[in-house]
Amino acid sequence: MNRLCVHTITTKPWSLEECLVEYPRQGIGGITVWRNALAGRSLGDSARMLRESGLEVVSLCRGGFFPGADARLREHAVDDNRLAIEQAHAIGAPSVVLVCGAVPGQALEVSRAQIAEGIAKVLPDAIAAGVRLLIEPLHPMYADDRSAVNTLRQANALCDRLGSPEGLGIAVDVYHVWWDPELREMIELTARAGRLDAFHLCDWRTPTVDLLNDRGLMGEGCIPLAQICRWVEQAGFRGFREVEIFSNRWWSTDQRDFLKRIVAAYREAITEVGAEG
Amino acid sequence: MNRLCVHTITTKPWSLEECLVEYPRQGIGGITVWRNALAGRSLGDSARMLRESGLEVVSLCRGGFFPGADARLREHAVDDNRLAIEQAHAIGAPSVVLVCGAVPGQALEVSRAQIAEGIAKVLPDAIAAGVRLLIEPLHPMYADDRSAVNTLRQANALCDRLGSPEGLGIAVDVYHVWWDPELREMIELTARAGRLDAFHLCDWRTPTVDLLNDRGLMGEGCIPLAQICRWVEQAGFRGFREVEIFSNRWWSTDQRDFLKRIVAAYREAITEVGAEG
Repeated sequence: MNRLCVHTITTKPWSLEECLVEYPRQGIGGITVWRNALAGRSLGDSARMLRESGLEVVSLCRGGFFPGADARLREHAVDDNRLAIEQAHAIGAPSVVLVCGAVPGQALEVSRAQIAEGIAKVLPDAIAAGVRLLIEPLHPMYADDRSAVNTLRQANALCDRLGSPEGLGIAVDVYHVWWDPELREMIELTARAGRLDAFHLCDWRTPTVDLLNDRGLMGEGCIPLAQICRWVEQAGFRGFREVEIFSNRWWSTDQRDFLKRIVAAYREAITEVGAEG
Repeated sequence: MNRLCVHTITTKPWSLEECLVEYPRQGIGGITVWRNALAGRSLGDSARMLRESGLEVVSLCRGGFFPGADARLREHAVDDNRLAIEQAHAIGAPSVVLVCGAVPGQALEVSRAQIAEGIAKVLPDAIAAGVRLLIEPLHPMYADDRSAVNTLRQANALCDRLGSPEGLGIAVDVYHVWWDPELREMIELTARAGRLDAFHLCDWRTPTVDLLNDRGLMGEGCIPLAQICRWVEQAGFRGFREVEIFSNRWWSTDQRDFLKRIVAAYREAITEVGAEG
């Protein structure tokens, strides 16, 4: 249980204050903070609240969205990523998750070059702040407008292209990669390269009725969670298992009840893994 | 224009009789017949109607769906694929497109093994009938219940695993593969292996509001159609370019008007390809 982390977006109706009261009550050990949860108070106040909660701050979500049709937009994205790095540093988050970005109608190879360029620009800031940038390959159904980085193979190639610097890692989210015929070997490759920094859980529902906000609670869908958890564990990963669920359905229910279901589903999903909780 | 083919499912509200009147009127050269369009009359009658239309029969859609939770279901799928091969032979279609199948909650590697087994069983029938079976890798968002074969790399590996027999090829649909960072090299590899048998066109809309039936008319979305057409052409493909659009939106409009738009969009999309229409 001490390795269970919940993303604030998972309980989207709650303020950060509510998350910090409710998560520890359920025995949850970590929190990944979405930037919208920081709005409305000083960074110092957020940092203090997080420290006092006893939760470990696992990551800040999210930076990225580097591609843009003109240089001004891309420079704005770079500035925003610098801000994300500052915010992560201030709240004690060791990493910023990157949703790399894409522009509908712009060639993917152009977006991919702009992503590499954007990451290269902000990497020195990340390294100086002691914050790692985590490339999260997104499901190919988001290649139009959310990310032109869509497989673990590609995310690893991007790290290589950038010289595999110390400040760069990869976030593996089962929702985005579960289908990949190369999944196991790519998890192993990512770990061997010292880049397996984050591991996100949810499930894929059949049918999925909304491309963005119809993710399932673990066990509601078809992703072989225990198998993937095992692969990740065997690759040497010992970090938090982060529950990140975008769901209009779950967001419309009582969040305290939902959180209890998350804890139960997490226990169920990792029962077979044969590792400490 | 003589290389433009339309799938009967694209004009779903029309009967085969209507397709056979309307497609030639717009100068369309080929037709890919979905099996539902064969219902309600003898195969001989369908074959005669198709011959008399002057349209070239490009393919039959579709076989596949090999995985199943028990042997009886898998045997039923094999029988159904044998029927599809008979139907293709009867109507003069040189190939059957395979949507390989998947079972929600069944491990993908199990489904993949069952797909290989199913194809191996029906291949002799296909070869005897002079009909090629075309593996169509489907977009990863269909890995839960439609196909456990989701990339061109994987489809090629499956052909290799089956001994790369003469009766087996690959169908490339831009909707399913446009996001692939390896797309160009995989198109070239597929062609070099003598497997690039079919090429399907439509577009990816932003936002896509339905995972199955919200495909776009060429030009409505973000797929770089001219670029992909060029790659396919450069790889040596000289077959039909098949328009396959599943769209509740377009199906609810006047189909004759839609067909005219398809012809115009096709001309626009291939203008830059620099090859004969």
